[in-house]
Amino acid sequence: VIGSGPGDISFLTADARAALSKSIIWLGYSPYLDLLEPIRRSDQVRIEGKLTKEKDRCIQALDLAIQGAKVALISSGDAGIYGMAGLVLEYLLERRSEDRPSFQIHPGISCINQLSARIGAPLMNDFCTISLSDKLTPWEKILQRLEGAAIGDFVIAIYNPRSLERDWQLECALNLLKKHRPSSTPVILARQISRKDESIKLFSLDNVPLGEVDMLTVLIVGNHSTKNVEGY
Amino acid sequence: VIGSGPGDISFLTADARAALSKSIIWLGYSPYLDLLEPIRRSDQVRIEGKLTKEKDRCIQALDLAIQGAKVALISSGDAGIYGMAGLVLEYLLERRSEDRPSFQIHPGISCINQLSARIGAPLMNDFCTISLSDKLTPWEKILQRLEGAAIGDFVIAIYNPRSLERDWQLECALNLLKKHRPSSTPVILARQISRKDESIKLFSLDNVPLGEVDMLTVLIVGNHSTKNVEGY
Repeated sequence: VIGSGPGDISFLTADARAALSKSIIWLGYSPYLDLLEPIRRSDQVRIEGKLTKEKDRCIQALDLAIQGAKVALISSGDAGIYGMAGLVLEYLLERRSEDRPSFQIHPGISCINQLSARIGAPLMNDFCTISLSDKLTPWEKILQRLEGAAIGDFVIAIYNPRSLERDWQLECALNLLKKHRPSSTPVILARQISRKDESIKLFSLDNVPLGEVDMLTVLIVGNHSTKNVEGY
Repeated sequence: VIGSGPGDISFLTADARAALSKSIIWLGYSPYLDLLEPIRRSDQVRIEGKLTKEKDRCIQALDLAIQGAKVALISSGDAGIYGMAGLVLEYLLERRSEDRPSFQIHPGISCINQLSARIGAPLMNDFCTISLSDKLTPWEKILQRLEGAAIGDFVIAIYNPRSLERDWQLECALNLLKKHRPSSTPVILARQISRKDESIKLFSLDNVPLGEVDMLTVLIVGNHSTKNVEGY
């Protein structure tokens, strides 16, 4: 299970690159495989998965690995942070022990590490990450997380903020945070970090353009200590 | 400003390595410089700093850089997470604009990314990071963070848990968390991740051996969803 970093292959670790080199099958969501294409050898096979078919990819990876193939299951960013590592473990444990292949997890640069490096040091204080996807987590629990983050005055990285089907959660989350933080609190909207269409924009809590936010966007909401310093 | 990862140089990104290669002066806390020694060329100078002298290192790096030297200021893990990036920005902004050298931040693998990869997927749910060091943050604020993290049911990564001078804060923090989570909640104690003396141990909230914890230790405290699965 390989964390392939935010995008550009220069952010791969040597460890992840060595693990990729040893793997004969590379399994992943196709845009992530495309980013790794410059370092794929002709004896290495690509198996493309679809965005919402993470479970299928995990099971296919386990099925291939138990037959003895060296399989790289690609997870963008860090495999352990909203990535494939947790899913692999889950499906592995559903199997009888003789059907469980051995595996290693190779960490990667998460998009918030890379985003922070690009814009200053927004995570220099205590921070938290919250996914707004209510596919696996009930919305009540997500609200509880937002409330806890507000009470604890954490800098908040928001993952999976908005999709075509989930179009009201982000507004609801920002409204909750506005009750605890000044409307001038800096909010960063970042999309496709270190990829071709990268975009990083600064707003504040009261003027986040919801329509610009999609599943490829990550937000960082400042806390009471966050300072917006132009032009350093 | 270079995030040199948790320890072993195989966890450096190609980007960080390229930045190191271009720098003629490497400035950092000596144990971190030691870890990078295998890739230092003879034309690259080492300037060693002391553990608590982060401010001196930042200022020295800025002073050297403004004279035109390519300086690598080394920060272990990720420079943006309890690393040097925030400090550099702070001291940079205290200077007149003509005394501010240009710089880039190169992200790195933080110790919790690497630790997670080693032990499973403890951060697969929403998580937060809290530093228990009350040197720059008042203890009241740290308690507020712990309270928020407990209310939000976050997995909690605890940095700077305990030192010779700060020997009571961790017990206080764990006692607070015990009021919100079962005493059987898994707690990971990790020290020197991916370095020679690496140690990773599993405890639960009610039996953390406080005496084993020092400044080189990081803890991960599970939340209500965290499962302890042996022998996967």
